[in-house]
Amino acid sequence: MITKFRGEEYIMHRHEKNPIITVKDFPVPSKAVFNCGQTMYQGKTVLLIAANYLKADKNGSTTGIHVAMSDDGVNFDINPEPLLSKRDWSGTDVLPCDTWVIDPRVTKIDDTYYIIRPAQCRNTGPAAVIEKTKDFKTAEFIECIALPSNRVPCLFPEKINGMYMRLDRPYNPAKIDPAGGGHKLDDQWIGGMWISSSPDLVFWGKHRPLFYPPLSFANYKVGPTPPIKTKDGWLEIIHGVYKENREWCYSLGAILLDLEDPTKVTHVLDHWILTPTEPYETDGLVENVVFACGAIVEEELDRIRIYYGAADECIGLATGKFSELMDALKASPVK
Amino acid sequence: MITKFRGEEYIMHRHEKNPIITVKDFPVPSKAVFNCGQTMYQGKTVLLIAANYLKADKNGSTTGIHVAMSDDGVNFDINPEPLLSKRDWSGTDVLPCDTWVIDPRVTKIDDTYYIIRPAQCRNTGPAAVIEKTKDFKTAEFIECIALPSNRVPCLFPEKINGMYMRLDRPYNPAKIDPAGGGHKLDDQWIGGMWISSSPDLVFWGKHRPLFYPPLSFANYKVGPTPPIKTKDGWLEIIHGVYKENREWCYSLGAILLDLEDPTKVTHVLDHWILTPTEPYETDGLVENVVFACGAIVEEELDRIRIYYGAADECIGLATGKFSELMDALKASPVK
Repeated sequence: MITKFRGEEYIMHRHEKNPIITVKDFPVPSKAVFNCGQTMYQGKTVLLIAANYLKADKNGSTTGIHVAMSDDGVNFDINPEPLLSKRDWSGTDVLPCDTWVIDPRVTKIDDTYYIIRPAQCRNTGPAAVIEKTKDFKTAEFIECIALPSNRVPCLFPEKINGMYMRLDRPYNPAKIDPAGGGHKLDDQWIGGMWISSSPDLVFWGKHRPLFYPPLSFANYKVGPTPPIKTKDGWLEIIHGVYKENREWCYSLGAILLDLEDPTKVTHVLDHWILTPTEPYETDGLVENVVFACGAIVEEELDRIRIYYGAADECIGLATGKFSELMDALKASPVK
Repeated sequence: MITKFRGEEYIMHRHEKNPIITVKDFPVPSKAVFNCGQTMYQGKTVLLIAANYLKADKNGSTTGIHVAMSDDGVNFDINPEPLLSKRDWSGTDVLPCDTWVIDPRVTKIDDTYYIIRPAQCRNTGPAAVIEKTKDFKTAEFIECIALPSNRVPCLFPEKINGMYMRLDRPYNPAKIDPAGGGHKLDDQWIGGMWISSSPDLVFWGKHRPLFYPPLSFANYKVGPTPPIKTKDGWLEIIHGVYKENREWCYSLGAILLDLEDPTKVTHVLDHWILTPTEPYETDGLVENVVFACGAIVEEELDRIRIYYGAADECIGLATGKFSELMDALKASPVK
């Protein structure tokens, strides 16, 4: 196991009740609770929690995304009925299947919450689909908006220069040495962040590469979460993966994108803000992983919260001072 | 080397002068001529030939796409100046690099020839870009229309139900047993065909899986060429890859898509129409490969021609009776 990034907590601090949500808390018997979407709704903290059920539910689904709400951000009421579940697309013009419903990413635009997530189709790999809800009680499918393989689609919370914008982490199946130098390594893909535009949320284009490894804690891939608007730029909590041989370490980091032109990265923190150290992060279904599908910033409380997936098995909460994170970022401009 | 598909020629027949274009015919000293785009222009056969130069040209490009024209379809005049070459995007809003210019696919819509090809950006893997020309003397960049990894973008020659449409062969990086059964194999990706829509050629969406392995000659991946309109449906010359352990065999095949709704595959030929048997197909930079970026149908001559890349090193010509191919396809409806 890769342990070289461990050290004192930096900017983000774990909650004393971590992991705050495990399978024991989940209202459907489950093997794991995965990475969760997160947002605020009517003053409550909302998590969209994907669980892997112990057995298929009445719809034949082995995963579901459930709405969890909380007043204090620590104790959550989890709806036993899923908001999003395996779909039966038969007789429709849409995807032939959607059997592994996980990793929701939530973005509020006006009064609508958009959820983008990977949709698994047979052997095709994950395509990206977008759905919407206004009440977290029912969700409506909009469209399939990206070809496979796309596991990490993230929507900006407003139009920029008249366009909706999105971040992704496409794969490069070429086997390239992440250290550069041109020679090829076995089983090495590089994943980085791209940015795309859309006039209508359905049709997307103008794809541009945005941000790639390496970072000190990410020689292999980096990926996005839904951007958060700040006066100093779009705050992007990212995941970064370090890989050595067959071992990996998933940490969280942060970058800033230019407010008017988010195709430009203006600031990069080369240090992680959270890296696996606790047993529930280092051991689990996928070991040595902290991974986020979003973050919640409350500037008035000078607070950033990240509800993160730990070892693909439970959910932890890390909290930091928003101003401390922004100060660290602003001290790290891209040269 | 996989040899199990060899046998008598079926439908498509090699030209006696094959390979009709090799590095010896190329006006720039080159290591290889790769897969070529193909179309008709002012009564001439036009090939867009990508070559890998022996040394970088004055633009620093090691590949270029050159226009070749022919009256008889066998003897070509190849322009020593590339139509498409490595681009210097610096100072622009477009891709930061585009250093490996290969595999053009040409589609005529009205009086414009659209060229879609993969554009390689550093370590990002190939994204798809679309360009256009009216005279094959200059080409104009339109946009980057697909995230990596996308090597095989193909445009339909007209709008269907008000939409431009496109075929792709995205990768599934999941390692799934192509024979099914759920267990995973090392180094197995499955590539299949998807279909997408666009109102304007720039923004794309409504992605749908279309066609996947297996076929008798393709257990691993299948991919498209630009569709050809026939009265019986959209004719799709496909490539199909059979893989066993670390060996492969790239053959060509054919399917039909529904004319009004090309998201539906109506006919599938389970037999290849061309598979590597000749020394210039079995030996070369990538051995055991016949691969096409298009085909030319002349119904009035009852003829289909495929200028195909052989072993990633030279170009062969295979010709068949259009009616024979269509009869074989029509005898093979999807059940």
